Amino acid sequence: MLDEAAVALDESAVRRIVKEEIELAMRKDPAARRASIIASKGTLDWAYPPFILSTAAAAAGLEASIFFTFYGLNLITKGYPERIKVSPTGNPAMPMPVPMADVFAGMPGMKAMATSMMKSMFKGKGVASLQELIDVARETDVRLIACQMTMDVFGFQQSDFIEGVEFGGAAAFLSEARRAHVTLFI
Amino acid sequence: MLDEAAVALDESAVRRIVKEEIELAMRKDPAARRASIIASKGTLDWAYPPFILSTAAAAAGLEASIFFTFYGLNLITKGYPERIKVSPTGNPAMPMPVPMADVFAGMPGMKAMATSMMKSMFKGKGVASLQELIDVARETDVRLIACQMTMDVFGFQQSDFIEGVEFGGAAAFLSEARRAHVTLFI
Amino acid sequence: MLDEAAVALDESAVRRIVKEEIELAMRKDPAARRASIIASKGTLDWAYPPFILSTAAAAAGLEASIFFTFYGLNLITKGYPERIKVSPTGNPAMPMPVPMADVFAGMPGMKAMATSMMKSMFKGKGVASLQELIDVARETDVRLIACQMTMDVFGFQQSDFIEGVEFGGAAAFLSEARRAHVTLFI
Repeated sequence: MLDEAAVALDESAVRRIVKEEIELAMRKDPAARRASIIASKGTLDWAYPPFILSTAAAAAGLEASIFFTFYGLNLITKGYPERIKVSPTGNPAMPMPVPMADVFAGMPGMKAMATSMMKSMFKGKGVASLQELIDVARETDVRLIACQMTMDVFGFQQSDFIEGVEFGGAAAFLSEARRAHVTLFI
Repeated sequence: MLDEAAVALDESAVRRIVKEEIELAMRKDPAARRASIIASKGTLDWAYPPFILSTAAAAAGLEASIFFTFYGLNLITKGYPERIKVSPTGNPAMPMPVPMADVFAGMPGMKAMATSMMKSMFKGKGVASLQELIDVARETDVRLIACQMTMDVFGFQQSDFIEGVEFGGAAAFLSEARRAHVTLFI
Repeated sequence: MLDEAAVALDESAVRRIVKEEIELAMRKDPAARRASIIASKGTLDWAYPPFILSTAAAAAGLEASIFFTFYGLNLITKGYPERIKVSPTGNPAMPMPVPMADVFAGMPGMKAMATSMMKSMFKGKGVASLQELIDVARETDVRLIACQMTMDVFGFQQSDFIEGVEFGGAAAFLSEARRAHVTLFI
């Protein structure tokens, strides 16, 4: 017993151990390993940020998920990568080869033109298409979650969505986001 | 004294206790119990996410607050639930019973039509109206905070706001958000 | 050795120390001292939130950074503070001295009018101009980071940006944001 008593610790030794363990725990802070991203918009331009950020997060070793809600729900419906459009209206800062007044940007045909312009800008620069982003997200285990309330309001069925999509409500998003440092509403 | 020395702990016992306590502390991580949400938009469609997410957070036991700034400030002014509009422009992904070119979406009258369409979609599905969302937020103790700087810029008075609203600046938002895992700008 | 054994700690004493240290560590939680903000929009109205929130964060002692991506990249290009415009389209909640139908908001000239209206509202209330916000951000050591992928897609060169801007990708943003409580996509 005396030998054991000899290795017993006093307060300063205990505090040193505690600080070491806390620093270790903070370094592997589980919230630093999770990214919970909401995709709420359905246009081509705003489709990129949630996919780029979540796949970059997954590539960095984080558990990443995208919660698709409101207009963003469209992004994971079947056939959407072919139908997706960019909206030039209300984006006066979008760089365009030819400057144009906003009223033209609101005319029929302009949306298709802006869409093909952006598609080719991204294509020409080796940036992925929406379909490629979806593929990368699935390959890197980014979880794709469809908002059930929006599905009900807009009349979507589970069969409208691409393969591998999960379904959940705001509570499902929050149960992950409350344990994540990276939480973004896009 | 010998009896006490007999229960003294060696380093491995101390490390075990420390890890237990850290795991407990992490589980009740105070940042996991707080949601700080900014509402910056004043249209009907973008009014839903901050209210739905914050009331869902409150229902899950989190302390939730909405900081209303910029256009979002309107949401908590008196009489706004009756006046609120949805903006169809720039939302090409909004599902519509009848497809329409964006130029029509920008015409006078279309906004009212999109608004009533969305109101009835939400109503028909048992989703709350803005007034009901405000009521639920108040019942679940979601804090509603009006951005003072925006009030000054846009010329709002405290008397313009619904009952129970608090007033604070960006510093007030940050003092909460810096202690919250869920921080969203909507 | 017997004297040392006499101050050795039993389990309840160790647990008390551990809880004290954890509470201290939580109070100086490093994630509470960092704000990682994305600026994705290039109009005058949406330029304010990232600058106001990040400079307020810096003023409160946080390490703050703004990651400029997509349309937001324009905000830190040379000469932009003079060229920046506010977009009235799709903002039906923007308070205006004179109400106007949305179709007028989309006409050429209206954007300039809304811009000058907002500039004078902010000016009249003592709120900073974009140039002043950039100056304050630099004085308070808010880091300004340009998104390299967007630069490539939109054809920006490093020389297009104002002094003091750093360059990085989504991975650079995430390496900071995963250690920050305040993470906002604006």
